[in-house]
Amino acid sequence: MTAIDSVIEKLRTIVGDGGLIVDPTQMQPYLQSWRDNWIGKSPAVVRPASTGQVAAVVKLCADTGTRIVPQGGRTGVTGASQPHGDSSEIVLSLERMNRIRSLDLDNDTLTAEAGCILEEVRAAAQNAGRLFPLSFGSVGSCQIGGNISTNAGGVNVIRYGSTRNLITGLEVVLPDGRIWDGLRSLRKDNAGYDMKQIFIGAEGTLGIVTAAVVRLFPYPRGSAMAVLAVSSPAHALGWLRRLKARFAEELTSFELIQRLCIEVTRKHIPGIPEILAEVAPWYVLVEVSGQDDDFSLKSALEQELEAGFSAGEAVNATIAESRQQEQSMWRLRESIPEAHKSEGASFKHDISVPITMIPEFLTRVESELARAIPNLRMFTFGHVGDGNLHFNPLMPAGVEPGRGDLQRVNTIVHDIVASLGGSISAEHGIGRLRREELVKYKSAVELDMMLTLKRAFDPMNLLNPGKIFTDELVRNSGRS
Amino acid sequence: MTAIDSVIEKLRTIVGDGGLIVDPTQMQPYLQSWRDNWIGKSPAVVRPASTGQVAAVVKLCADTGTRIVPQGGRTGVTGASQPHGDSSEIVLSLERMNRIRSLDLDNDTLTAEAGCILEEVRAAAQNAGRLFPLSFGSVGSCQIGGNISTNAGGVNVIRYGSTRNLITGLEVVLPDGRIWDGLRSLRKDNAGYDMKQIFIGAEGTLGIVTAAVVRLFPYPRGSAMAVLAVSSPAHALGWLRRLKARFAEELTSFELIQRLCIEVTRKHIPGIPEILAEVAPWYVLVEVSGQDDDFSLKSALEQELEAGFSAGEAVNATIAESRQQEQSMWRLRESIPEAHKSEGASFKHDISVPITMIPEFLTRVESELARAIPNLRMFTFGHVGDGNLHFNPLMPAGVEPGRGDLQRVNTIVHDIVASLGGSISAEHGIGRLRREELVKYKSAVELDMMLTLKRAFDPMNLLNPGKIFTDELVRNSGRS
Repeated sequence: MTAIDSVIEKLRTIVGDGGLIVDPTQMQPYLQSWRDNWIGKSPAVVRPASTGQVAAVVKLCADTGTRIVPQGGRTGVTGASQPHGDSSEIVLSLERMNRIRSLDLDNDTLTAEAGCILEEVRAAAQNAGRLFPLSFGSVGSCQIGGNISTNAGGVNVIRYGSTRNLITGLEVVLPDGRIWDGLRSLRKDNAGYDMKQIFIGAEGTLGIVTAAVVRLFPYPRGSAMAVLAVSSPAHALGWLRRLKARFAEELTSFELIQRLCIEVTRKHIPGIPEILAEVAPWYVLVEVSGQDDDFSLKSALEQELEAGFSAGEAVNATIAESRQQEQSMWRLRESIPEAHKSEGASFKHDISVPITMIPEFLTRVESELARAIPNLRMFTFGHVGDGNLHFNPLMPAGVEPGRGDLQRVNTIVHDIVASLGGSISAEHGIGRLRREELVKYKSAVELDMMLTLKRAFDPMNLLNPGKIFTDELVRNSGRS
Repeated sequence: MTAIDSVIEKLRTIVGDGGLIVDPTQMQPYLQSWRDNWIGKSPAVVRPASTGQVAAVVKLCADTGTRIVPQGGRTGVTGASQPHGDSSEIVLSLERMNRIRSLDLDNDTLTAEAGCILEEVRAAAQNAGRLFPLSFGSVGSCQIGGNISTNAGGVNVIRYGSTRNLITGLEVVLPDGRIWDGLRSLRKDNAGYDMKQIFIGAEGTLGIVTAAVVRLFPYPRGSAMAVLAVSSPAHALGWLRRLKARFAEELTSFELIQRLCIEVTRKHIPGIPEILAEVAPWYVLVEVSGQDDDFSLKSALEQELEAGFSAGEAVNATIAESRQQEQSMWRLRESIPEAHKSEGASFKHDISVPITMIPEFLTRVESELARAIPNLRMFTFGHVGDGNLHFNPLMPAGVEPGRGDLQRVNTIVHDIVASLGGSISAEHGIGRLRREELVKYKSAVELDMMLTLKRAFDPMNLLNPGKIFTDELVRNSGRS
């Protein structure tokens, strides 16, 4: 019996036959990502059903030096939740830990296990008249533990913040197998360091989140949506300024969409209507919501659009006339990534810059890219109210990227992002996709701080190794 | 020349004569706290005027093993910013680093140096038509660096969150003297670990915050305030539920005040009017604010108070009829701590529990304390919308606490807090005041995690030693 076989047998004792997959065919879904661009190998997928089982698995791995890839709904795009190709890591899926443990309405909190599907958490809140605001395209398959580990963003960040802002407590299994019960449901707690913060957005490299207490909000009574046609990103920012001043926190979405995104989405996804009668280079999807009723919000939005029109900020706009029309607008927005995938070769970036810098970013990057790859098709959309763009230009139809094109495009885009004080990963994380670029764009001091944290909490580098940092970087760090 | 004299001469070279205080009389204000309950000794107070100078000072201290107490506005109440009594630490005051470096209106951010007075940051925002929402009684003397290092709370947390939620970037001098430039002004950034989080609320034990990028919000167009007389904390929670459902994020304050707080404040602070014509055991101060005008908000608040009245939630209430009356309500609220200080011996606690647990907390704690110290006078106020109470019972008039009373009272209060899943420090931090209790109430796992972080980032224990943890605890940690 080889060492790994012996580990697998011990894993079986911990989680039972139902908790262990070793059959290659059955393992397959656990080894690949949503976009199929990350595929790995593993000797076993272990699916613990309780925090105690997770702890026992991790303890066993710590004792035997076995490396672990913690895994949620596999909807990430950076390869963070897939094993490497050398079959050196077991996959630890949280999917069987999918209970909502409790709900406290006066405190407006809900305790969910890591494997709960985001949509189910949202539904549990909604059934109680509350909103759990985290939402994006993969809401039906991503898991809350994965959302926490990537500090997921989405379409409501402008109002409710990223996942970090929605968490009051965590339960975490540490790399040595100890359980930290930090499942507090407090709004304020300054009793020492706020340890949960280090695990949020750490991509499973410092501990395995097994459960969380999340914040709930009053379910909005009313909402209104509009699509604006704008001539440029600067024009969109003018509207952002105006609508923020009028609606403040009631402005719950402000999404910029480039024309090509509409065309590609209508081409590949059935039943998507044209966004506006008028063809424009850019559109903005605006949602306001709050405790006023639909009618008041819609009137206020109409009034503000008219005020902008009178002030010479000419715009063509349509306000959704029904919930159905609102859903149709959202369906369009949420279908963009899927359609983009079907349209062929592309370069994907998930960047953020200070909101003020968005027009400059787009002008510079489009001009430099046009020189690098003629006829590249600009495909930009995103949460511009947060300074976050998904900047995903498509290769010319039928043309495959040349050798080195990916590298060239990334360098152009991310150099400009860096020069504007931005981030090369606004919401997707680093995983394996950006780990070399992280080294390039982080200062030596910051990288050293990150590695100090990693070494302190996972000195054997057993949790999600090769993610965020290469193995080599971790190994060589801290040596003088 | 002794070792410390040599260090002081080198400090003088770094910061110049104007940046160094060694005269005992001139040093005095830097050695004591606002309540005068923490007084220490120090060989020198160093006042660097730039980040470079802070870095040079810290580097010198790291090289010579000199311990440092970083200091802001000294308005804390836990002894975190005063040196110990053995003259072993220099005080590093950030007060000369008081520039607002920049303001970006489209991005809604402002960059301030650590020594900026909170009120000045608020004023700079307001002059630009924006709100920086952090606010509490010491707004005119506390500094933003200190606010960050204690993750300060205050009266608007229910809407805007604690300081942590208001920060997008930090500049920090690390314990070895390196400068980390993390002054990003991004709403979203998932490129690796979010290192700023570890310094927020760390009480200067992991690094010295020298500047920060803070978030600004639209300045509310309108507001309305009311005082409600309620029969019990449970009754207040009923109103919290109702008002949250109606106003959501527009409910910007919900402060509970016990009757005695009013009486004591009117006794000691001139010109404070009676809060309501009706005497009641408890009051609630409610503020709603947002982008609707005063009139709309006041009408909506009136309507909701009437709806509650019709639903049988009998209440006596008054709505502020003018800005002046609103300010007068706030002045009453903000004067409570000062008046409390003048009323004599007391026991102070800054606790939080899940909001749902507030009535149970108060019932249990008042009954147990009545047995322990007869005629103890209950004096409770706080941010009940956040589950945070300042629970500060006063000794009977003219009676001094007996030997062991403080310990007994703290144990009763904090044992109950712990049994309800609460925190022994909701917003004031640990400092020296609660460091022994921290060990009692934190799990061994969590305490070990905190010490792991401390050892990793400040291995020589030079930054604010003896705060949060005793020296001994740090020294003995990490040994097996």
